[in-house]
Formats: sequence, structure tokens, C-alpha cells
Amino acid sequence: MKADLSNVLDERVENGLTRDELHESGASSVEVPDNVARLPHRTNGGRIAEAGGRLADEFEAFVNIGIGGSALGGATLVDALGPEADVFFVDNVDPDALARLLDRLTLDETVFSVVSKSGRTAETVANYAVVRDALRDAGCEPSEHVVVTTGASSPLADAETRATFEFPDVPGRYSALSVVGLLPAAFAGVDVEKVLAGGERAEPTGDVLEDTGRALGATSYLLDESGVDASVMMPYAESLETFAEWYAQLWAESLGKDGRGQTPVRAVGATDQHSLLQLLVDGPRDKLVTFVDPGDAGEGFVVDDDGYLDGVTLGGLRAAELDATAASLVQDDVPNLRVELDGVTPAEVGELLYTYEVATVVAGKLADVNPFNQPGVEWGKRAARGVLGDETCADEREVVESVKETLLQV
Amino acid sequence: MKADLSNVLDERVENGLTRDELHESGASSVEVPDNVARLPHRTNGGRIAEAGGRLADEFEAFVNIGIGGSALGGATLVDALGPEADVFFVDNVDPDALARLLDRLTLDETVFSVVSKSGRTAETVANYAVVRDALRDAGCEPSEHVVVTTGASSPLADAETRATFEFPDVPGRYSALSVVGLLPAAFAGVDVEKVLAGGERAEPTGDVLEDTGRALGATSYLLDESGVDASVMMPYAESLETFAEWYAQLWAESLGKDGRGQTPVRAVGATDQHSLLQLLVDGPRDKLVTFVDPGDAGEGFVVDDDGYLDGVTLGGLRAAELDATAASLVQDDVPNLRVELDGVTPAEVGELLYTYEVATVVAGKLADVNPFNQPGVEWGKRAARGVLGDETCADEREVVESVKETLLQV
Repeated sequence: MKADLSNVLDERVENGLTRDELHESGASSVEVPDNVARLPHRTNGGRIAEAGGRLADEFEAFVNIGIGGSALGGATLVDALGPEADVFFVDNVDPDALARLLDRLTLDETVFSVVSKSGRTAETVANYAVVRDALRDAGCEPSEHVVVTTGASSPLADAETRATFEFPDVPGRYSALSVVGLLPAAFAGVDVEKVLAGGERAEPTGDVLEDTGRALGATSYLLDESGVDASVMMPYAESLETFAEWYAQLWAESLGKDGRGQTPVRAVGATDQHSLLQLLVDGPRDKLVTFVDPGDAGEGFVVDDDGYLDGVTLGGLRAAELDATAASLVQDDVPNLRVELDGVTPAEVGELLYTYEVATVVAGKLADVNPFNQPGVEWGKRAARGVLGDETCADEREVVESVKETLLQV
Repeated sequence: MKADLSNVLDERVENGLTRDELHESGASSVEVPDNVARLPHRTNGGRIAEAGGRLADEFEAFVNIGIGGSALGGATLVDALGPEADVFFVDNVDPDALARLLDRLTLDETVFSVVSKSGRTAETVANYAVVRDALRDAGCEPSEHVVVTTGASSPLADAETRATFEFPDVPGRYSALSVVGLLPAAFAGVDVEKVLAGGERAEPTGDVLEDTGRALGATSYLLDESGVDASVMMPYAESLETFAEWYAQLWAESLGKDGRGQTPVRAVGATDQHSLLQLLVDGPRDKLVTFVDPGDAGEGFVVDDDGYLDGVTLGGLRAAELDATAASLVQDDVPNLRVELDGVTPAEVGELLYTYEVATVVAGKLADVNPFNQPGVEWGKRAARGVLGDETCADEREVVESVKETLLQV
């Protein structure tokens, strides 16, 4: 994996960056804490592969019950690398969607993986309770069909289950390359040791102009400083669409604080050329666009047509569109960069995810925000508890009630 | 369907709007051209229902081949109202995803609906060519398995197919309530006449404080004028996730021009409380957040737990989270509004889509941009043709080649 930064430089686009600015950004000396930086080294891939393989031998389907960082890493890996597997992610509280999923599954042949660092996440606790009931109704013993990944002081740690895995000592959104993201991937048949080996390649080294994660973090930070408020992540592969979602969470929750933070915009090429591109090219000059090139130009079906498309492969068409879109943005002075994968493989995807974790930490430290907390969401969690009758959150409930009064309805 | 605008007013949030500003915005007198405004009236729902029903009698699966406005309306309706149906959308050029879909289908029992207004959309032409080959390889006669929706002067108009439908005289992104969006919905068993009836309810009437579409358009325009650069669409229902995508296309392509236009950000509640919310609450004050409330508080599974969640329904939990999130944004002076559906029903979804088409036209006219064109994407289309060898686009190819030279790779 490499990143091509040519189209963020001032040689290419107005108000672009210089190599000196990157160099002097301070990104080379940002310290990435060991718990994050060394996670791929510390994760025991062999054990996870074995655990996932054993579950896959025994069960037909795997359902991950978790939300946010307890879902997106696994979903990204499965969608990119094992899309045929019967792995499902329950990452919302949605009665209809959950009912449809439970209808579709043979519960007898399904294992549920409950993931919550605190063990107190409302959505996950609620979905887990519903699943327990459904298992019992189907004559299955819940403890036989449930594995848990949680933190040490969590109320889930003592649940009676098939197995309990330890949630690593990082915020959920940095946990993709641990059991959190890798267990569903292992169930799907993904070679998780290769994913980890790819992650290790992204471990931050010294120099911003030699380290992809540092370079990406510095680029975003510097552009943000000069008014680039939005960061569009646009992989050119359907299989990487979930990666853009994972990125959006990582970026928004890590960097969106103290009145700062770029808005992450998820997209997918070539599709969004027929959606967002008009805005990117012709709207406000406040965006950085990142393309992820899956590196398969020339592959796939060959088109049999009587026009200029005759003989072109679908992969070749997509690659031509990526090149044309990048050039189009350059024409309009929109900074853009290209992350180049050597195929959508376990190692490349592992490196991609970990590179962006490093980039996020670097961007956060340069902006002087803490990339590891999320103080803004705590009030809302308490407010929801209050609305549901928890008297320890009665003050928050009162605020919610006062805001519910309608002043203008149209 | 109603919109609650209380939390965009200055009585609730700093830098909010006043009723006078809405009134004086000019939104009441914006003219929505008849081809758009009257589309639900002009669409013959009975014929589309019949055509879709006939195809559903004869085929097991329906594959829509189209991109952008030729895909998102249908996908929104199917995902919201007929999610169990075997309806698929090929809206990208992706060799792997297409190969997986073709593998999964029984071609003998599949109908392909090719949708392109011009009949020249590269992605659609290429995918259609691949499908024709696949049908022939499977011993199926393409003309028996293909229907086409296209414009009058399109090269597809004369293709030999089961049926040819006329693409209406609106840009693709405004075509949801025509055969373009309704045919896949009808195949999925959706009552398309009710969808149209809902759309008719959204036909714009005079006054901004009485017409939901005008009110939403004026709100966005006024907030955009005062620095609200991003518009987050956050339905609280999995089934409406595609609606947010449809909205993003409509908004970006209609309003993103002449250096203006809000960045649409698609989200889904409650999931994105664990992703974007930190940024929305604690990041830059440059966002409008729109919640879509599916209106099913109190429905669904009942949670059996030993904490405060005991006895709560999943629908009730979700509703509490929506209220808490809205209050949380108000606390931090982030303008937000709530679109209230009376259930995710055909009429309500029809009204929702059409209301946003009106809102888009109103916002565009107020901002003095043309909401019906997309000039920014034309250069890139020509450039892609050039790269693929079309000599009439050799100049554009040269630009692409010059931009491909790498200046900095990390």
C-alpha cells in the first residue's frame, strides 16, 4: 500500500501543500501511544483464527451484536475479504430489521457474538436480551450460542457463555485489528494473521515523508487548518464501501471535538460520480477527496459493444473513471489523494485500516485534541436513560421534555 | 408527514432562524416547474403496477441496471417498503460484485431492467453488455429477459426487449415517482399507487409556513447563508438508510454548483450516535441535522433485563434515543429538525421523497442556482472516454495523462 500525494501539492492545485509544510508540521515526531501503535503485534492472531474456525465448523451463521467500534471493524473486514459468508451485524436498535434477521436465521445453527467494552451499551444490551429470548423460544440454550467480547469490569464478563474474549485496552474505534474485528473475519474464512501482518507494516516510523499514516494525518491536518472542512473517502470498489463507513466513525469520533474536526463523507466510486461529484467539482472548495484504488485495472468481464467501450474490461472502465475523476478535481483545484492497494487482500486491508488509525492519531495530536475520548456523546446517553425511567438521570430527562414542546410544525 | 422545525428557531438555538426570516425568504413564491411539480399526477401508477406485477408473476428476481438517479429512487422505495423481495441494483462498475450477483441468480428466472435517460451512460452500457453475454451463455434470449426505460432519442429506445418504458422529462434524480423508481417497487409488491398518492400530497402550495417542502427548502437555504455548510440526513430506521443516500444525490447534484452547496452527509440512527454524533455535538457549528422519525415508538420486541431497560420495547428505546439526541444537539446550539412519518408506509414514503424534491428546487431557486443541471460532471465523462481510446476526447486524455505523473508517493 502506498499513498500518492501529488494532487494535494501546490504544484498541482491552488492552495495546495508544500513538502516543507508537511515536513514542518510536526507529524514526524508525534507519539502514537503503545497500546494503539503496537496492537497488531500484541494481538494473538493464531488464537483468534482457531476460535473463529471452530465456530465456523460448528455453526452456519455468525451474528455480531455490537454498535460503533464494536461493529465496524469486523464489518469492514468481512465485506472486503469474506463477503460470501453468513456473517451479520446487528448494530442498531431496529425492531423490523432484527425481526427480519431472526426470521431468516436457523437459530440452532447460529452463534451470536456480543461485543461491548463497557458491557453497558444500551443498544447492545437490548439486542442481546431479545436474542436470548429468541434462542430460548427456539429451544436453544443461550449459553451454548453466545460468545462475548468485553472489558474487565463489565457486567458481561461473568455471563454464562461459550467463551469470553477480552476487549483490548483501546477505544472501540481502534479495535479492528484485535479480536473485536478479527473474530467475525476469522469465522468468514479470512486469513486474520495476514491481516495482522499487514497492520504491522503500518506501524508508525519516524519521517512524515516516508510513513504513510503520518503523511495522511499531516495532510488532513494542514488542509483542515486552511479551511478544508470535509474529508470525502471514496474507495473505487464495492467491497470497500464499509471501509469508508469505518473511516467516518474513526475520523468523526476521534477528531470532532473542541469546535474542530473535518466532516467525514463516505462515498463509493464509480457510483458517486453520479451523485456527489457535481458538488465536489463545482461546489465550495472545502473538501479533500481520498480515492482508494483497489489495484485491479484491466480485470473482470470484457464488454462486447459497438462503441468506444468495446473490448474494455469492467475493471479497466472503473480505473479510467478514477483517473478521469482525479484529473477533473485537479482541473478545479480540489485537493485529492490516492491510496493505492495491491489488490483487496488481507494484508493490504490490514495495512489500510492501521494506516488510518495512525493518521487519525497524528491528525488529532497536531490539532491538539484528544483522539481517544468522546465526551460529546455522554450527555445524550444519560438523557436516553432518563427518558426510559432511570431516576439517576432525571435532570437530563427534564431537558429532553422541555425540548419536545413544539414551537413550529409545518 | 409533518416537519417539526422548533429546533431550528432562534428561540431554541443560537443563530437559529425566525419565523419572519422564513416568511421573507421568498420561498412562498418560488415556482416549481410543472414537469417536476406535477410528476406524481402525470405518472400512470396503474400501468406501472400492472407491468411490475406481470414481471413478478413470471420472474423470481429483478435486477435494475442503472446508476445515480436511475437507481436510487427505486432502491429507496424497495428498501423502505419491500425489503424481502429479490430486487437488486447494479449501480457501479465492479467486476467482483457483478460476478457474485450473476453467480447467485438463476438467470432463467431473472428480468433485467436497464435504465438510462440518455442511453449512453458508460457504466450502464457496460453492465448491460456483460449481462447480455451472461444471458446468452446461460441459453437465455436477452430480449426475453430485458426491459428498458430510456429517453426518446436514446440508442436504447430501439433495442429489442420485452418492453420499453419512457423516461420522464425530468433529470434522473427527480424521477423516483415515475416508472424509473416505481417499476422495481411494483415488482417488489409495493402499492405504487399509494406511493403516488403520497407524492401528490407534497405538491407545493403557496405559503412557506404551511408547505413542508417549501419550509424545508427555505430552512436549508437560510442556514446555508449563515454558514451551515453541511446537511446531515439521519433517519431513525434501517429501512430508510437508502433514503439518506437518495437525498444526498438529490442535494449534491442539484445544489452543488457555482461554488455553493451544502455537503450532504448520510447517517442512520441510532447507529451513528456511536459514530458521527461526537462531531455533530462537539465539532464545528456548521451543520443542520435532520432526523426522520419512522413513528413507531413503543413497537417491537420487549427487553427482558434486570436494569433500567427492562420492559422497554426496541422501538421505544430507539425513540428515546432520538429525543435524547435532538435535545443534546439543542444543548449545544446545533440546529436540527424532525420529519415525522406516520409509519414507513407507501403513502408516507411517497410524500417524503416528493417533499424533498420540492425542498431542493426551492433551495436552489433561492440560492440562484439551477437545480436541474449537472455541468460539473461532463468534463470527467469525456476524460474517461478519452482514456478508453475515444479520439474525440483526446484533449481531455492528455490532461489525465499529465495528472498521472507522480510527484510525491509515501
